[in-house]
Amino acid sequence: MTATMRAATFRLPGTIRIESKPIPEIGPNDALVRVTTTTICGTDVHILKREYPVADGLTIGHELVGVIERLGSAVEGYEVGQRVIAGAITPSGQSNASLSGFASQCGCGARHGWKAMGGWRFGNTIDGTQADYVRVPDAAANLAVIPDGLTDEQVLMCPDIMSTGFSGAESGEVKIGDMVAVFAQGPIGLCATVGARLRGASKIIVVDGMPERLAMARRLGADETLDPASPSLIDDILALTDGRGVDVSIEALGTQATFEASLRVLRPGGTLSSLGVYSQDLKIPLDAFAAGLGDHTIRTTLCPGGKERMRRLMDVLAAGRADLRPLVTHRFKLDEIEAAYELFAARRDGVLKVAITP
Amino acid sequence: MTATMRAATFRLPGTIRIESKPIPEIGPNDALVRVTTTTICGTDVHILKREYPVADGLTIGHELVGVIERLGSAVEGYEVGQRVIAGAITPSGQSNASLSGFASQCGCGARHGWKAMGGWRFGNTIDGTQADYVRVPDAAANLAVIPDGLTDEQVLMCPDIMSTGFSGAESGEVKIGDMVAVFAQGPIGLCATVGARLRGASKIIVVDGMPERLAMARRLGADETLDPASPSLIDDILALTDGRGVDVSIEALGTQATFEASLRVLRPGGTLSSLGVYSQDLKIPLDAFAAGLGDHTIRTTLCPGGKERMRRLMDVLAAGRADLRPLVTHRFKLDEIEAAYELFAARRDGVLKVAITP
Amino acid sequence: MTATMRAATFRLPGTIRIESKPIPEIGPNDALVRVTTTTICGTDVHILKREYPVADGLTIGHELVGVIERLGSAVEGYEVGQRVIAGAITPSGQSNASLSGFASQCGCGARHGWKAMGGWRFGNTIDGTQADYVRVPDAAANLAVIPDGLTDEQVLMCPDIMSTGFSGAESGEVKIGDMVAVFAQGPIGLCATVGARLRGASKIIVVDGMPERLAMARRLGADETLDPASPSLIDDILALTDGRGVDVSIEALGTQATFEASLRVLRPGGTLSSLGVYSQDLKIPLDAFAAGLGDHTIRTTLCPGGKERMRRLMDVLAAGRADLRPLVTHRFKLDEIEAAYELFAARRDGVLKVAITP
Amino acid sequence: MTATMRAATFRLPGTIRIESKPIPEIGPNDALVRVTTTTICGTDVHILKREYPVADGLTIGHELVGVIERLGSAVEGYEVGQRVIAGAITPSGQSNASLSGFASQCGCGARHGWKAMGGWRFGNTIDGTQADYVRVPDAAANLAVIPDGLTDEQVLMCPDIMSTGFSGAESGEVKIGDMVAVFAQGPIGLCATVGARLRGASKIIVVDGMPERLAMARRLGADETLDPASPSLIDDILALTDGRGVDVSIEALGTQATFEASLRVLRPGGTLSSLGVYSQDLKIPLDAFAAGLGDHTIRTTLCPGGKERMRRLMDVLAAGRADLRPLVTHRFKLDEIEAAYELFAARRDGVLKVAITP
Repeated sequence: MTATMRAATFRLPGTIRIESKPIPEIGPNDALVRVTTTTICGTDVHILKREYPVADGLTIGHELVGVIERLGSAVEGYEVGQRVIAGAITPSGQSNASLSGFASQCGCGARHGWKAMGGWRFGNTIDGTQADYVRVPDAAANLAVIPDGLTDEQVLMCPDIMSTGFSGAESGEVKIGDMVAVFAQGPIGLCATVGARLRGASKIIVVDGMPERLAMARRLGADETLDPASPSLIDDILALTDGRGVDVSIEALGTQATFEASLRVLRPGGTLSSLGVYSQDLKIPLDAFAAGLGDHTIRTTLCPGGKERMRRLMDVLAAGRADLRPLVTHRFKLDEIEAAYELFAARRDGVLKVAITP
Repeated sequence: MTATMRAATFRLPGTIRIESKPIPEIGPNDALVRVTTTTICGTDVHILKREYPVADGLTIGHELVGVIERLGSAVEGYEVGQRVIAGAITPSGQSNASLSGFASQCGCGARHGWKAMGGWRFGNTIDGTQADYVRVPDAAANLAVIPDGLTDEQVLMCPDIMSTGFSGAESGEVKIGDMVAVFAQGPIGLCATVGARLRGASKIIVVDGMPERLAMARRLGADETLDPASPSLIDDILALTDGRGVDVSIEALGTQATFEASLRVLRPGGTLSSLGVYSQDLKIPLDAFAAGLGDHTIRTTLCPGGKERMRRLMDVLAAGRADLRPLVTHRFKLDEIEAAYELFAARRDGVLKVAITP
Repeated sequence: MTATMRAATFRLPGTIRIESKPIPEIGPNDALVRVTTTTICGTDVHILKREYPVADGLTIGHELVGVIERLGSAVEGYEVGQRVIAGAITPSGQSNASLSGFASQCGCGARHGWKAMGGWRFGNTIDGTQADYVRVPDAAANLAVIPDGLTDEQVLMCPDIMSTGFSGAESGEVKIGDMVAVFAQGPIGLCATVGARLRGASKIIVVDGMPERLAMARRLGADETLDPASPSLIDDILALTDGRGVDVSIEALGTQATFEASLRVLRPGGTLSSLGVYSQDLKIPLDAFAAGLGDHTIRTTLCPGGKERMRRLMDVLAAGRADLRPLVTHRFKLDEIEAAYELFAARRDGVLKVAITP
Repeated sequence: MTATMRAATFRLPGTIRIESKPIPEIGPNDALVRVTTTTICGTDVHILKREYPVADGLTIGHELVGVIERLGSAVEGYEVGQRVIAGAITPSGQSNASLSGFASQCGCGARHGWKAMGGWRFGNTIDGTQADYVRVPDAAANLAVIPDGLTDEQVLMCPDIMSTGFSGAESGEVKIGDMVAVFAQGPIGLCATVGARLRGASKIIVVDGMPERLAMARRLGADETLDPASPSLIDDILALTDGRGVDVSIEALGTQATFEASLRVLRPGGTLSSLGVYSQDLKIPLDAFAAGLGDHTIRTTLCPGGKERMRRLMDVLAAGRADLRPLVTHRFKLDEIEAAYELFAARRDGVLKVAITP
């Protein structure tokens, strides 16, 4: 093991570049993991553009596939050399929020209380995964061993995209026979489509402006595909539900237009499950909200993390219930990460997700 | 039985006045009920002011305490002369919405499908209760016999105010030990306070601008009372929760200010339970919404109806778990209803609810 | 329309035979449906064997596919000639039980209160469906129009087998990534397997002694098949879950052996979802129950009925999410029903379900 | 701090006596707490009688009120000298079970997987609280600071009796207006009564053979009290519910008689919430179980632990919503604990709970 490593580092006023840093020290509850594959998330692009603030000098990245290099003195039940993943959200499991079932809102630093988004630590409040090595805090709660037979690329979506996307269907409580609309079919929206299908939706209507994303949506389980630019979008969706509205709509982009459309196509008593990261105040139109009398539910969900979540998602993949490999459209070496950011941010060349290998 | 009766009737361009009308005919599934006590709701004032549209000539009112006068040929299990109530919402129980557990959104007319607010018929789509007699549709699903020993005024809040107010706590899923904030302490807000208390909230913080309403709130179970005009309102509520935010906030007015405050005081993972009838588009501030990443739930609820709901609410009263008689602050004869509307609309003289007796 | 019809009639001391009866009269809320296809259920065999008591002279059968022949005067929203189904359970929608969400336990006769199994009327408390015509009570709550393109045999499982089987997975609250064991793979157990698959289970382990049923189970979505006679059955199932136990076990036979095995393979905190009709007291072994400290849930479910349930199930079929036609292994005319009973009761010739066409 | 301490120690073949032991060492995630008050539980008596096996030499006791004496190197957010409690169940928060919301079934030792009752460590798998000092594992997940103004005796019921008793009402999902029966009114049954009251039950029927316990039950919120020896017990309870049965029944003793009665008084669709520790196989009578067709739920719950649970329970007490001090009927010094066991085991002198102060 060398004393230094490469790390994709955020630098003011606004770049992410490879720097050399010391390999992290670990405490008694930590693990040091050698990264074998990671990826770039839309959130990382927000960081690059300074739309989401992080500290100067932070290593970016929150999606980890790797190998255990070293274990803290108090970490039991793992062995050096095991292939593992960890969620984008790394709860302590010991905060009041975690113990209440809201691990993503964990006041993790001090293991106390509640903090909005507090469970998101990698590449946000501590150094992240776009590096040769990463320190995993609260390793016992977060390291999930990869089942034999699954490749890095097969599990690369588990830490964030698959966990978040599936949660759109889960928080919407999609039931067997539900009709579901999913707005936007980027990587998270596509995983929401897969999740809705896995929970037994009988009709999945998806909306996206990029034909190749709609094609991928059909491949992954969508029944109907629509263009958001269509002036009859709302009416078309309502017609597909015999005028009633969908039981669950999933917002997967983070804009006023998709949020509003999600509400307009919802039946009375339906649930709008919101996954997008918004960047401005939202408007709830009075009519779409039935003046507050429609028994509607609007629910937001931050990516569920922790090792049990990761275990379940990998079980789904190992059983062949879902195959998310088609989402990995491009591959880069860690040294090439600046080019990867450029491609991913520009949505060029049909990119969905990139695999980064140190 | 005379052939005509008195009825508070909406007339364009905007009055509600007593008129003489034929006593209603009934069909096989209906009941004719002689009204012994009814009341005026804020919604009725909206109708009067033409802020909510109903047909010219409609009898107003949706809160019924009375005596069965006649039963349709297909209605079993009741007897003429029984004292009964019916909910403001009178579901058929047979629509797709009802059978899915959303009886308030019942496509009741044709007993099919879903319709936002479709379960609200009295004083909205059919003649209402501010009259000598009223036809109760789907009587078997809606008539609840009053237990011996409960007076008209004791059960007068069941059809709407108590059912709606309690649903604020129920839809918010208030748990033992929760901290709850209730915004506005009119009749519905006060019942939300009672409901939160009944479900085991350990701290109930209420907000209203009228000191007598805050005093009533304390009498009915509130722990902390605050003035909405205070510039430190949000901070004060957060401080009362040790900075964490309330587990559940209940909106009981229907304005941007109360909706927004309800969101701002909510902890990550908390639920905003909305009861108000809004009259304009709502804004969700980005920061209060944690950019969509706070695991928040926003849920609206329309007054639950049906005879089982009414039975339960009357059981709560009969057991002495709640006493809502203090909400009835004024009493009028049916012939005096125009004066009652005037007082109630103006919120004069400390009025909370009026009892109207034909 | 002739004045008489044929009907499979239970006669003491214990036969079911075709008799001639008057075509039923209907009341204002009823419909008369001409039966085009029905089937025989295990419960009917219990009736035949006098293991479940019904009145002498009752028409048997509770699974209806047919055409509306006549509508009661108060029934709106349907037309004579429409192809319809109705659930085995025909709730009024108007009893206290129905309005509480327990429509199967509906005190339907008088539309009041609660009655265990009260929602099961066809072939139990009123004349059933193994006849040329059947009276459907509370037609507005129970008739579901068959979507174009679905044949009688495609929807024949909806009224009971599919609704019951799916409810095994629904009441067990199977989640994406759950491991599920299903005990017995008769028609209901097979549908439970399909339901578990539709809700996203990642591993479905089924147990049955008949190889052809295990083969059908694999075809419909099971991952692992086991023989109940194996002395290592429990250990084998635990091994398939890495020693933890299944998240949900579904009992689909109604015996001590299957109930007990369902409990023994359950992880702490898991749910035993019981569908079987038991015929003797059950024993809960102390060790399998963790002395009452295992956070276990045992839940029984009676076939959910009502038109909305039927609509959803037919949507699932129309969308191609499930295809239950392979369950129909034999076909008989109504006149041949005695032979059909004989075959079905004996489980001869690989029979799963029979289609009976008047 | 001295090097040795006193500890109530289990010794084969079957005694619990005070011995001198070294004060525990602590690891990085532990805390050492000086015990200021503890109590004896019925489970401890089972241990004494060798009905529940623990290791020779183990310190008994799982209810802790004390003062932080020392903190492990990795434990943040606490200070030496703080008054704290910890639950009888001390989850790691980091096992798969904990991360799934079943912290009581935590595979805590290795922080992995699931283990029935695995979260119960004090006085079971590690040294307990009937001593001068106790080592608290996973301190960050388990230590809850006592709010100012609450005495040791006020919070003494939180770690087990109050948490378990309340969970009876919580797992039963008692709703506003429910009718509830509680079988046995020992300390846990009494807390179940308080819990049912706090969740809004409109009628609470309790059953116990000791008149002083029934009197205490009335004081704490019961509406009706019955003698289990009455031959008309079941009929009397059904009559109190107008023949329907209770919505929720809570078993709080652990015998066939109370389990069976809990099921017999349950309405269709109702929930039997079981708290008792059983010592023999249970029988489910066929008729009481509606042959498996009554939509019944049977759910067992092990005492919920962790610091967030403790915080909530103490908030309930601090707010005056419940006062459990009357349950502490006798007080002993640690040196007198053998006499305390004798009194408690014999249920002499109206004992409910004893306070033990080192």
